[in-house]
Amino acid sequence: MAEQITRRDVNYSDWYLDIVLKAQLADYSPVKGCMVIRPRGYALWEKIQQNLDRMFKETGHSNAYFPLLIPEGFLHKEAEHVEGFSPELAVVTHGGGETLEEPLVVRPTSETIIWSMYKKWIQSYRDLPLLINQWANVVRWEKRTRLFLRTTEFLWQEGHTAHATEEEAREEALRMLDVYRRFAEEYLAIPVYYGPKTDSEKFAGAVTTYAIEAMMQDKKALQAGTSHFLGQNFAKAFDVTFQTAEGKLDYVWATSWGVSTRLIGAVIMAHSDDNGLVVPPRIAPTEAVVIPIFTKKDNDKIADYARDIRKRLINAGISTEIDLDDQSSPGWKFAEWELRGVPVRIEAGPRDMKENKVVLVRRDTGEKIFVSIDSLANNVKSLLEDIQQNLFNRAKDFRDKNTHYTDDYEEFKKLIEEGAFVRAPWSGSQEVEAKIKEETKATIRVLEDDQQKHAEGKTCILGKEDAKYIALFAKSY
Amino acid sequence: MAEQITRRDVNYSDWYLDIVLKAQLADYSPVKGCMVIRPRGYALWEKIQQNLDRMFKETGHSNAYFPLLIPEGFLHKEAEHVEGFSPELAVVTHGGGETLEEPLVVRPTSETIIWSMYKKWIQSYRDLPLLINQWANVVRWEKRTRLFLRTTEFLWQEGHTAHATEEEAREEALRMLDVYRRFAEEYLAIPVYYGPKTDSEKFAGAVTTYAIEAMMQDKKALQAGTSHFLGQNFAKAFDVTFQTAEGKLDYVWATSWGVSTRLIGAVIMAHSDDNGLVVPPRIAPTEAVVIPIFTKKDNDKIADYARDIRKRLINAGISTEIDLDDQSSPGWKFAEWELRGVPVRIEAGPRDMKENKVVLVRRDTGEKIFVSIDSLANNVKSLLEDIQQNLFNRAKDFRDKNTHYTDDYEEFKKLIEEGAFVRAPWSGSQEVEAKIKEETKATIRVLEDDQQKHAEGKTCILGKEDAKYIALFAKSY
Repeated sequence: MAEQITRRDVNYSDWYLDIVLKAQLADYSPVKGCMVIRPRGYALWEKIQQNLDRMFKETGHSNAYFPLLIPEGFLHKEAEHVEGFSPELAVVTHGGGETLEEPLVVRPTSETIIWSMYKKWIQSYRDLPLLINQWANVVRWEKRTRLFLRTTEFLWQEGHTAHATEEEAREEALRMLDVYRRFAEEYLAIPVYYGPKTDSEKFAGAVTTYAIEAMMQDKKALQAGTSHFLGQNFAKAFDVTFQTAEGKLDYVWATSWGVSTRLIGAVIMAHSDDNGLVVPPRIAPTEAVVIPIFTKKDNDKIADYARDIRKRLINAGISTEIDLDDQSSPGWKFAEWELRGVPVRIEAGPRDMKENKVVLVRRDTGEKIFVSIDSLANNVKSLLEDIQQNLFNRAKDFRDKNTHYTDDYEEFKKLIEEGAFVRAPWSGSQEVEAKIKEETKATIRVLEDDQQKHAEGKTCILGKEDAKYIALFAKSY
Repeated sequence: MAEQITRRDVNYSDWYLDIVLKAQLADYSPVKGCMVIRPRGYALWEKIQQNLDRMFKETGHSNAYFPLLIPEGFLHKEAEHVEGFSPELAVVTHGGGETLEEPLVVRPTSETIIWSMYKKWIQSYRDLPLLINQWANVVRWEKRTRLFLRTTEFLWQEGHTAHATEEEAREEALRMLDVYRRFAEEYLAIPVYYGPKTDSEKFAGAVTTYAIEAMMQDKKALQAGTSHFLGQNFAKAFDVTFQTAEGKLDYVWATSWGVSTRLIGAVIMAHSDDNGLVVPPRIAPTEAVVIPIFTKKDNDKIADYARDIRKRLINAGISTEIDLDDQSSPGWKFAEWELRGVPVRIEAGPRDMKENKVVLVRRDTGEKIFVSIDSLANNVKSLLEDIQQNLFNRAKDFRDKNTHYTDDYEEFKKLIEEGAFVRAPWSGSQEVEAKIKEETKATIRVLEDDQQKHAEGKTCILGKEDAKYIALFAKSY
């Protein structure tokens, strides 16, 4: 048997860490709060990067790279920004053996250094829009960390765009929110709720923060991506003006948006089970694994048969590994590849060989399918699509079943306590929001567009004020 | 006309910076010594990454990611390593508003943090070889910097491998040197000399450093990639032992190897000319640009003709842009696309349209070729191959013409003074090496394998000792 992992119903948090560590996705490092992303975890990140990067380029963005180190004074130019990020900064005070005149912070996010450059590059409306993305590492000093979900250093992408009009910038922020939603749903197979955050939950320096929110198997919310409309805040902080088509001078409008290695945590917690990792086929570095079932005799022939199977799949564009280890038992090997989350296992033993057949085993359901070797590649292809769709449907059913509406605070508390997403009418009062957080640990995840019409005529979930919004509440990571 | 750039024969260094800045490859940042890589420069880096990454994977390596911040004490565990890197460190002394108990250095290279993890991961010969690569940013505090060639922060890849035997590790170091040589020659179109460095030029902590060395158009050498055989130095520093197949305990053998964004500087200085950047087709983000030649009438038809040309090329897998700007003159646009280094320009005017023809213009030679639109895609494809080959041949002819042999020190000094690579017999004395460097600024770039046979019977270029080596001397970046 492969290494045992804690069952979800015993301890969900231990189960999560067991998967991360035993599937060798990441490891603790000697630096407090920082993780090492091991090859199997990094391969997932590469698949995420490839697909997102293509989507960014399809929407007109180019990649660039800005410095890791930012003069500390830059952060002070935008009042809310510095207030939000100051407690989390790592500060370089020495360089090349000397004390620096001005300390440099390790970027927690790059708005300030990027807008200091945009000042050089933007003069006229002809220089706009400027649509830039960066793949980079950032550092935010965190007190409590958890592998992938919250680490002091993490990898992410941050888009930073500059526009001539408010309308265009708002459209961009929503466009990228939609890219994130599509990516989460179509590639990660994770359904998400989306919409603006409340003021108390928005990014430090934003006018509006939009987010996608996913439900994990413990019914807690995970913020999986954010897109910010920054107004003219950073343009004003860095004095970035441009000449409009009409010859006037105006400040530039901005957005920023990002997702991080946290998405790997989301994939683990949305789909995996007590046998280990489950990876959606579209982001699986290995889509299928061929395991020859060795007996006492004919092992060479069986190995050749397995190699032939692998070759057929590779030729059909399916990334396939083969496990030729003849020391471990088939059962041990099955468990090992289940732990690693490979979507389709292909078993091939002496009898299969004789009959020109193979056995396909789905990682998501465990179902076994017997197919002839001639129709193998097509069968695996459609099976991968089925698995992708099934993972999404399963996650969506689970989420929908655990999303409720109530306007009764006692019921609200009970639902949150038991674990759920709860839609409830809300007056818009930050005091109410804070009180609910204090009493239930639930926060408002987003104000979903398509729910707002139901607010009319309702009373706030707490207190007697009229409701202005339907808010989606949940405990979160 | 596009922005004027300094001519090479007026000031080579200004010419280089003009290309970097005016082709918008990079820009100075507000942080001393750090650059911003702009979209056109980053697109080159992406092409370099894609191709190298594929070559790394073909040779069995996986990517991973290790922390940016390294406990300062780790560097002290390997005596030569800390001596080499201490003067260049950026040090984080504060995090999350508090003074750190132990300062963290921003990685200048990752041997120490990686070997601290390898200690956890390697127990037995069955865990070996471990073949990991990382794409990352590193920081080395530099006093004198130059865009791409030497910057305080730069992007690179660093491979770190662990092996059971010395022989296997030495083979790995040479294998990766060969990957770098092939990449430089086949993709960057830059011929390189290669071989081991002398002890005084090796990496801090290595037993042997191998390098590829390229000649720039000013006849100076650029070290374009290094591969190190590290012996058991880091295994001993971090106590990484393993059980051999025979049941004994031994220290693990190591290599590391890297190339950086410096390669973009190499491409610029190897191929570009007084009209701007010249990019080898295989790493060109844009391989061809279509420029419709607008007249007073029929502009819509000409634009459609140009769009059709672009579509044909895109369909043939050639990355193609189109310049539909109708405000600038054709001459201005030609100059602009020459500055940007796009390998093939396609001009299409009213007469071409009438005759179903186009004009292809090579960026490398300026040659014009008239082709029919039906054979366009094939013509452009073979032209791109021709350009790739021509750039390599041109660079190789130039390099070979400027590489000399002498055993006369007066001639040696004259050749170095005029600008050249000079092969000369050398005793192996570090004093001689240092004296030559002091007197001529030339250093030994590598000891080429295939030249060593010529050392026999020769006397050292300086002094009277017998020669042990034929060394390749040059001034360098």
